[in-house]
Amino acid sequence: MSESVMVARHLFGPGPCNPYPEATVALGRPLLGHLDPVFIETMDRACEGLRQVWGTRNARTLPLSATGSGGMEAAFVNMVEPGDVVVVGVNGLFGERMCDLAERCGAEVVRVDFEWGQPVDPETITSAHPNPKIIAVVHAETSTGVRSDIKAIGERKGDALLLVDAVTSIGGIELLADEWGIDIGYAGTQKCLGVAPGLAPFTISDRAWERRVEKPRSWYLDLGMLGGYVGEASGKQRTYHHTAPVGMVVSLAAALERILDEGLDNVRARHQAAGDELQAGLEAMGLELFAAEGYRLPELTTVKVPDGVDSAKVRAYLLEKYNMEIGAGVKQFASTVWRIGLMGPNANPGSVKLVLGALKDAIENA
Amino acid sequence: MSESVMVARHLFGPGPCNPYPEATVALGRPLLGHLDPVFIETMDRACEGLRQVWGTRNARTLPLSATGSGGMEAAFVNMVEPGDVVVVGVNGLFGERMCDLAERCGAEVVRVDFEWGQPVDPETITSAHPNPKIIAVVHAETSTGVRSDIKAIGERKGDALLLVDAVTSIGGIELLADEWGIDIGYAGTQKCLGVAPGLAPFTISDRAWERRVEKPRSWYLDLGMLGGYVGEASGKQRTYHHTAPVGMVVSLAAALERILDEGLDNVRARHQAAGDELQAGLEAMGLELFAAEGYRLPELTTVKVPDGVDSAKVRAYLLEKYNMEIGAGVKQFASTVWRIGLMGPNANPGSVKLVLGALKDAIENA
Repeated sequence: MSESVMVARHLFGPGPCNPYPEATVALGRPLLGHLDPVFIETMDRACEGLRQVWGTRNARTLPLSATGSGGMEAAFVNMVEPGDVVVVGVNGLFGERMCDLAERCGAEVVRVDFEWGQPVDPETITSAHPNPKIIAVVHAETSTGVRSDIKAIGERKGDALLLVDAVTSIGGIELLADEWGIDIGYAGTQKCLGVAPGLAPFTISDRAWERRVEKPRSWYLDLGMLGGYVGEASGKQRTYHHTAPVGMVVSLAAALERILDEGLDNVRARHQAAGDELQAGLEAMGLELFAAEGYRLPELTTVKVPDGVDSAKVRAYLLEKYNMEIGAGVKQFASTVWRIGLMGPNANPGSVKLVLGALKDAIENA
Repeated sequence: MSESVMVARHLFGPGPCNPYPEATVALGRPLLGHLDPVFIETMDRACEGLRQVWGTRNARTLPLSATGSGGMEAAFVNMVEPGDVVVVGVNGLFGERMCDLAERCGAEVVRVDFEWGQPVDPETITSAHPNPKIIAVVHAETSTGVRSDIKAIGERKGDALLLVDAVTSIGGIELLADEWGIDIGYAGTQKCLGVAPGLAPFTISDRAWERRVEKPRSWYLDLGMLGGYVGEASGKQRTYHHTAPVGMVVSLAAALERILDEGLDNVRARHQAAGDELQAGLEAMGLELFAAEGYRLPELTTVKVPDGVDSAKVRAYLLEKYNMEIGAGVKQFASTVWRIGLMGPNANPGSVKLVLGALKDAIENA
């Protein structure tokens, strides 16, 4: 970029957030080769850190070389053969996207819709089909700010494999892949993990591994080939698959180390406290929250735009005057909902005061 | 990474190379949102810079959010329908990979093999089938250090679409996509562009666009959806597809600006001079070059391991004593060929002296 004054934003939208400083500093380290022993050791550390934030002991837990949406694609292309029955819970944009992906893989999609702003109901989703191969659900819907109860779905999944989008939950709220029965999970780095976008943390259980597609339609995201690339956490010989995005992996490892040093429980409590205070503050301002009570994500708050207020003008005002980004709503809620993310390092009480104060100014004066 | 002494390598293997300093500095800039107007302007600049290094005016020229191998996948999934005839020139690993990808897309693959170390012969490849949909060739084979004559293939392509892998040529040697008749091209950032791995510079002509797959098997790499994501260089409204890897794109834009400031011809001359001097120096040491004379890449030199010398020991010695990475050979040449890359900022006369001196020491003393 050539502009002489550097732009520094408060990234309070649905992601990316401002990265943890450790993640940014790591990007300035001398680059390593993708087969360098020092890098391989770093990759192993990143995979182990990911196991912690996923809440899993899955050997096959790794950062895929794509953004979160690439992780979604990896999940479906490796698991779905033409004709497989896939039940998808749709309570927002990312559930809809799951349907699109499953269809491209030739699945017989059983789409189960829920009102946007409401969670996926465990009873309804698990009784939608007698014997699906996969039940797919978004844990934290980025489009609506809603958390669904994955644990309750896992308890009722039966023989189905449970496929979960944890893009906006990982590193921010409770996520216990093994305990909840998540078989395939993908996430992103640019939300609560506090890293720039570009990687998709991925995990797959042995149970799902045995039922995967032998030769998926994707070479790039073929998990069968990716096993050797990370040594499958077993010290096996690494084999070349593709050139790992080394800088991004080193950055992810640094952020994970930071998160685990702070303590996963502490990090989650920090997200919860910031979200609680923000949501209380918005209601105190007379605004109405969008997501259903009891299912609100602390890391991503959705709030209705007050009548007579121009959503786009407010966002432009915040960007101009405060260098602050907040998100618009999605699709039918584009101009009637705002999405405010306090993720990663932004989950702190100062950010809450800042966004509440700036938003009040913007609503009154934009 | 937690080790107290930071490791700084000379990355003289087949890539990644050490990035241009501008590319690294850019990664330390405050992160921007993927819909931020300042980022969108940067993305436009990156796309325009890519047009320069591709030698194209294609509107659809953009960095895909994946490594070079993801670019290869995008090329095939967007162009190949089941039953399409795809002629693939195979003179190394990446030609082989093209066959795998084309087969996964259901292509009728006509594989035309050439000896490793030799170029793809234009006459042979273009007469391998009377009416293929696609002729696919690697411009600069990273596994063997060989350049093939894309211009001559383009002149003979007839109605076929010409699909070219420019991973190791872009930003280092002459590449004239429009003049040579390249219809679909993909590349990587971690070779001569001097950026960390993680993006795939991609270009597609209008002619190929009209013959693309309407709804490809990949959602993530669906070019039809990606058009809106970059505004197709026409100032159109951006639409959300996936979260761009903003940090990497900003880094790419900075490297492209650096390359264009230096001058593309100067950058290429610098790569040529370094490669020429390295290859002459290796021969003067009594070593034998692997790639066919007249088709040697200046940016990636392949040289035979002398009889009685242990390839792995030499590479370990270089890493240990000089913090220098050079590459092993690929497949049947794993222990009999070295690959030495002088790419991006490493294409300079000092690097030549350094690698020649260190390699001489290693051969004698490892």
